[in-house]
Amino acid sequence: MAKKPASEDEVLKCLARHFPNRHSSLLLGRGDDCAVLKTDDHICVSSDLFLEDIHFRRNYFLPEEIGYKALAVNISDIAGCGARPLAFSLNLVLPSWVDMDFLDRFFAGMAELAEENRIALLGGDLSSGPSLCACISVYGTCFAEGAFLARGGSMPGDQLFVVGCPGLARVGLEELEKRGRDALEDWPDACSAHLRPVPRTGAGLMLARAGLNARLPALMDVSDGIMRDLPRLLGLTGENGSQGAALGASIWVKPGNLHPEVVRHAEMFGRDVVREALQGGEDYILLGSCAPDMLPALKAAIPGLWAIGRVLPDSGIFCNGESLETCGGFDHFEH
Amino acid sequence: MAKKPASEDEVLKCLARHFPNRHSSLLLGRGDDCAVLKTDDHICVSSDLFLEDIHFRRNYFLPEEIGYKALAVNISDIAGCGARPLAFSLNLVLPSWVDMDFLDRFFAGMAELAEENRIALLGGDLSSGPSLCACISVYGTCFAEGAFLARGGSMPGDQLFVVGCPGLARVGLEELEKRGRDALEDWPDACSAHLRPVPRTGAGLMLARAGLNARLPALMDVSDGIMRDLPRLLGLTGENGSQGAALGASIWVKPGNLHPEVVRHAEMFGRDVVREALQGGEDYILLGSCAPDMLPALKAAIPGLWAIGRVLPDSGIFCNGESLETCGGFDHFEH
Repeated sequence: MAKKPASEDEVLKCLARHFPNRHSSLLLGRGDDCAVLKTDDHICVSSDLFLEDIHFRRNYFLPEEIGYKALAVNISDIAGCGARPLAFSLNLVLPSWVDMDFLDRFFAGMAELAEENRIALLGGDLSSGPSLCACISVYGTCFAEGAFLARGGSMPGDQLFVVGCPGLARVGLEELEKRGRDALEDWPDACSAHLRPVPRTGAGLMLARAGLNARLPALMDVSDGIMRDLPRLLGLTGENGSQGAALGASIWVKPGNLHPEVVRHAEMFGRDVVREALQGGEDYILLGSCAPDMLPALKAAIPGLWAIGRVLPDSGIFCNGESLETCGGFDHFEH
Repeated sequence: MAKKPASEDEVLKCLARHFPNRHSSLLLGRGDDCAVLKTDDHICVSSDLFLEDIHFRRNYFLPEEIGYKALAVNISDIAGCGARPLAFSLNLVLPSWVDMDFLDRFFAGMAELAEENRIALLGGDLSSGPSLCACISVYGTCFAEGAFLARGGSMPGDQLFVVGCPGLARVGLEELEKRGRDALEDWPDACSAHLRPVPRTGAGLMLARAGLNARLPALMDVSDGIMRDLPRLLGLTGENGSQGAALGASIWVKPGNLHPEVVRHAEMFGRDVVREALQGGEDYILLGSCAPDMLPALKAAIPGLWAIGRVLPDSGIFCNGESLETCGGFDHFEH
């Protein structure tokens, strides 16, 4: 009788039966990095949970890093909309092991990132509970009216680009899980990408600005790896899926495009470096597409932006000329 | 060495050291029912946690009621600002006992209230975890620019009023804890006030509208009982405390003002009915103050609104002519 939810997808389908995603209050509904509240000054909203042993481990995260990353993953969603973060709400479930030293350092790490982004903590709630859970909602505004960068809108021939180093955080996670903080010595950038991901708000805002006098780029923050998130950008999967015609992509990735720690890690374990990088996970980098003539200006203006391929008119994703399915990536897709 | 946080207040003080409450993004900071985001169309925001065995029990809450109340306590904060709810975010931690039947009923109860209030679910996050936790953020707009009803602003001589039945939910909680859902038979309204509190958005909006051509009423939603929340309305405690001169109040409460189930319950257990009603807890009623000449119109327009007393120029709260301290109420205040 008691049927367990088989997957997150099944929970979301149940939810979608009860709550319509089109609504007079929403300019953009669920399924993108942020939803957009329809007000005079459209507000982007994103929420994320950050739980012990699911999103972080206490044996290799410092309290400051837990506070920092809980907020960073939310700000990254605002960056993925090309919006400017304004403020956030913090809801905290505190288990009995939390002491004032932990709290003070947890808040300090979070406050450092809040100050860097000049955002306000506007409220929230506290409760005791069985394990540490931070639930943050973050609010942002568009650079100009309606100029938020949604996932949809790629067109055949568009240039695909990435801002950041795919796969770097995955290397950090793997090594931190194996060796704890000793891993920081050999894999400093990879560990940092996992422990303290930098939300790319500056790049997001520049992309929104660049699109003002042209066609807006499509943009998303990559949290599940490029292999899973590229089909979402193209509208092939996810809540925004099947809105228009199916698109495809041809991407070209060489070891020279990747971070040296990602290359060294793959070589050390005899793995395919491109596949490792594209599988990624918790990257918190940006993935987008734009009209081809915009690319040179974007490359010049945005540090870390590099061209990864082209949008194709027909479905199918190819990496270095081979179907991505043979890469094994589709194992991880949600259907 | 490891000092445990002694109280919620200590956690909040630590937080206040790290996060300023005045900020260019905020029209109204922490410490009220909602914060107000400074945008062209000011947005009210409130977040609450709703956890098993802290905020609800599964042995007497139906799944529909858990979903309903998780959202209702948030909408009540929007009502306490005299704002109109627009949308909400839902973050859910799901433990392994959750099955699809529970989820479907949980969402159905929440969706019923969302539809009544015509609000959109705009997103959120899902995770597995050790116990059920719903973390909701709710967003609202003001009836007119800047016309949200904050807690501050009471003046000596102002009329104090309540919308709803203080102490009713407390009777429900006590009887549900003792007898489970059997309590519904003898205490139907009290149990309903605990299981399915009705957010007073209509009353909040009418109060905001009434204040447009006059001085705006002060307003808050009562979640900790009138004894604890009245000093907050007067600016005596809480994050907004000591902003201006200390005010006091003289309130008059007769059994005839109270719900018959509250009166019957106090009589049955030989308790002081007025003290029971004022202690309350999880009332989700409204408490406010207004210029005396506004009261007749408000009484006529808002069902369930009744005058409870007057704001005094000097500190001290009196109930039926006696200092509230002799009522034992101050034991429960936060200092």
